[in-house]
Amino acid sequence: MVAPAVDITAAEATHAKNIAPVDTAAVTPRPEGSIYMGDFRAPKIENVRVAMIGLGERGLPQTMQMTAVPNCEVVAVCDLHADFTKRAADYVQKETGKRPVEYSGSPEAYIKMLEEVKPDAVIISTYWETHAPIAVAAMEHGAHAFIEVPMASTLEDLWKLVDTSERTQKHCMMLENVNYGRDELMFLNMVRQGLIGELLHGEAAYIHPLKEQMHSVERGCGSWRTYHYAARNGNLYPTHGLGPVAQYMNIARGEDTFDRLVSFSSPALGRADYAKKNFPADHKWNQLEFKCGDISTSLIKTKKGRTIMVQWDETSPRPYDRKNLIQGTEGTLAGFPTRIAGTKVSPKPKKEGEPGQPGGAEIAEGDGFHQWYEGEKAEADMYAKWDHPLYKRLGELAEEHGGHGGMDYIMLYRVIECLHNGEPMDQNVYEGALWSAVTPLSEKSVNEGGAPQVFPDFTRGDWTHTAPLPVVK
Amino acid sequence: MVAPAVDITAAEATHAKNIAPVDTAAVTPRPEGSIYMGDFRAPKIENVRVAMIGLGERGLPQTMQMTAVPNCEVVAVCDLHADFTKRAADYVQKETGKRPVEYSGSPEAYIKMLEEVKPDAVIISTYWETHAPIAVAAMEHGAHAFIEVPMASTLEDLWKLVDTSERTQKHCMMLENVNYGRDELMFLNMVRQGLIGELLHGEAAYIHPLKEQMHSVERGCGSWRTYHYAARNGNLYPTHGLGPVAQYMNIARGEDTFDRLVSFSSPALGRADYAKKNFPADHKWNQLEFKCGDISTSLIKTKKGRTIMVQWDETSPRPYDRKNLIQGTEGTLAGFPTRIAGTKVSPKPKKEGEPGQPGGAEIAEGDGFHQWYEGEKAEADMYAKWDHPLYKRLGELAEEHGGHGGMDYIMLYRVIECLHNGEPMDQNVYEGALWSAVTPLSEKSVNEGGAPQVFPDFTRGDWTHTAPLPVVK
Repeated sequence: MVAPAVDITAAEATHAKNIAPVDTAAVTPRPEGSIYMGDFRAPKIENVRVAMIGLGERGLPQTMQMTAVPNCEVVAVCDLHADFTKRAADYVQKETGKRPVEYSGSPEAYIKMLEEVKPDAVIISTYWETHAPIAVAAMEHGAHAFIEVPMASTLEDLWKLVDTSERTQKHCMMLENVNYGRDELMFLNMVRQGLIGELLHGEAAYIHPLKEQMHSVERGCGSWRTYHYAARNGNLYPTHGLGPVAQYMNIARGEDTFDRLVSFSSPALGRADYAKKNFPADHKWNQLEFKCGDISTSLIKTKKGRTIMVQWDETSPRPYDRKNLIQGTEGTLAGFPTRIAGTKVSPKPKKEGEPGQPGGAEIAEGDGFHQWYEGEKAEADMYAKWDHPLYKRLGELAEEHGGHGGMDYIMLYRVIECLHNGEPMDQNVYEGALWSAVTPLSEKSVNEGGAPQVFPDFTRGDWTHTAPLPVVK
Repeated sequence: MVAPAVDITAAEATHAKNIAPVDTAAVTPRPEGSIYMGDFRAPKIENVRVAMIGLGERGLPQTMQMTAVPNCEVVAVCDLHADFTKRAADYVQKETGKRPVEYSGSPEAYIKMLEEVKPDAVIISTYWETHAPIAVAAMEHGAHAFIEVPMASTLEDLWKLVDTSERTQKHCMMLENVNYGRDELMFLNMVRQGLIGELLHGEAAYIHPLKEQMHSVERGCGSWRTYHYAARNGNLYPTHGLGPVAQYMNIARGEDTFDRLVSFSSPALGRADYAKKNFPADHKWNQLEFKCGDISTSLIKTKKGRTIMVQWDETSPRPYDRKNLIQGTEGTLAGFPTRIAGTKVSPKPKKEGEPGQPGGAEIAEGDGFHQWYEGEKAEADMYAKWDHPLYKRLGELAEEHGGHGGMDYIMLYRVIECLHNGEPMDQNVYEGALWSAVTPLSEKSVNEGGAPQVFPDFTRGDWTHTAPLPVVK
């Protein structure tokens, strides 16, 4: 439970109260009238009318990028704070000549927006625990819902999203931008070409020192996450590393799905120590008892028997890392730094004793799979050989419009493109739910001394006939 | 079970039969007359009479190194094969002028050697499953036993080693050479100085592509391991990465100990595929059903709540890696490549806007803890600042006499030095047992769908009053 806070704003108080305990919803039959959404195609939308909900550190740049995406229009912007909606609306007006309608002033302002504006789609970039209620309302009001990561943090909320999407037949996609990173797209491309053989194992992480956010008193920044560190113990932010690895493995798409998870958390020392050293004794951060382990490590076992290690640490002073490792019988691809090794991907070592002979004069760029092929030249070589077609098409535009190295722009581009063309989304609602479910399952495993937790099958058995993500050209 | 082998030698047949099933021995009270060996000091031995048992790929180089260690004499050499004992005896005679007695010809030749030679100490470098019976016999014949890794592969054998050591009051040390690596000693030194704060998490691995050993028909090489891959599923070789991490954390030495473990194995594909592609259909390797997952990942939780990830893969085409990662509240030290980051160990970033100012002119070598401090210059810098006193004393000698970059020589030097001086061993019998216990516990966890397995307390509660390994000068 969250200890009484001293200097807490109204929004933060609501936030702290809304952090729900773990629940363990089981799978019930799909209600009549609901349909499986794994390969759902919505009617084409010529010009997608988009509403942005949440305009803080994440929502504002997304709004800016959205003005550069074809076939869409930002028709409304919504936030608790009027100055945030004005800032976003000003930008959109400047870029497009059209001013979106502004909604603010209460946590329910988005409902009024949905009723009045009736957007085709909403982008939700709010506090974690408000993702589900806002997305559910959006779908019920006829909008496709696109939700920042994690999609939700409890199994109950994840089921609500799945069930509402199936009932309303609206897309509900988690916006896992990292799946659109250049390296992640390239690895997906390489894996699909069989370059590392049969897949065995993956590693995913979100290691990102964010303690400094506790200093921020600005609204819209990540300081509200601090309450989560006090309320829960597990992997609270699993999807950035896991999404790409799951896609490499065709998780929930015909080939395989998550079976179970075990998790341990380290001691929780860094946050309390930081609060003590950086804030007065009577500061709200010094009233909290931080129970979330500084580093969380989980292992996932898939139905096919593959393994995935998933880590999370937003506290310790370590360099940023998402792991992005995928290992197969013929080789391994990994990130941070980008490097590859394998029988089909490593450069051939120089053949000894054959100087100047045909076929024997290759330049030694690595000792076969016994060394990582990495570094600037290796990366240039990899991109030249294996860049994903989607990156080849959009990479230049993405670099211009930015957002985490371009991945954000490609993601938003694809969201609108799929809606415009009436295509299935690149990430369906079940993938977002499955990747996000690591949070509640890891909490439960930690709480039960590492006991294995079985993933609910959000597809209710339908993942077996869902096609792998096609190679998007 | 091991399928009937076609082209199997007598020794290999014995080997295959001896792979015991997992057992789960519980802790019973220490028998009267037995004593706790955690800080045991044996009477000083002026000149240590050493017998070498097992003279294959591991035992031969150890014999060679032993001839360069002061205060000892190789008095006997023992192996199944007479040409192996001759090769070793020839070397010892050439180097020292004294020829050790040779024993060979049967799996029990070592018993005759123990009875006739009565060595002060034995070095055991045989098949994994013969470690325990040979060491038990050695201790019962009055010799201190030094055993290659893993010390044993079943809880039953590990308990036999602990109980025999306590009953006979002979040292029983697992020869974890990696704890004597330059980087590992340096990290131990850094951790002891508090440079990364309170310890939170470690990572350990033995990733080493060894499939090619299946080709070897030479006796004494590692091809016999192939039977283990067919008989068991878990982490069969956990200690090279884990030993140093456990020592950083003072595991089983006053501060902390292992509590429990969870483990998953990936599919077992690489060995069968390799056998099929490289050997005739009727070859013995194609008669086996390989059940050991290509990559095994375990998580350990300690009593203090710290976490350790332990991986093992001797099959996949990946570069060698032991991880060697130790993370604390103030920083992280890691290996492969050697790199460090943290508030107390990262070079200060260049202070912007203060060119030429006193204190502001530092050269940017890294962006504080947001980047790894690594590379040739960084390593030289680290070694200059933090090389362990033991490495400073013995590093030069070690480089001369070799063995995995010198670590083998330093280890053997310390074994003899401790016996000569009547000091406790750097690794006590409980540490070896605890590190090795990952094998049977991971097998059981894998077999039970990831269920947590509690480590037996081999010290029977006495770890709480055992001093941390002192900084050996």
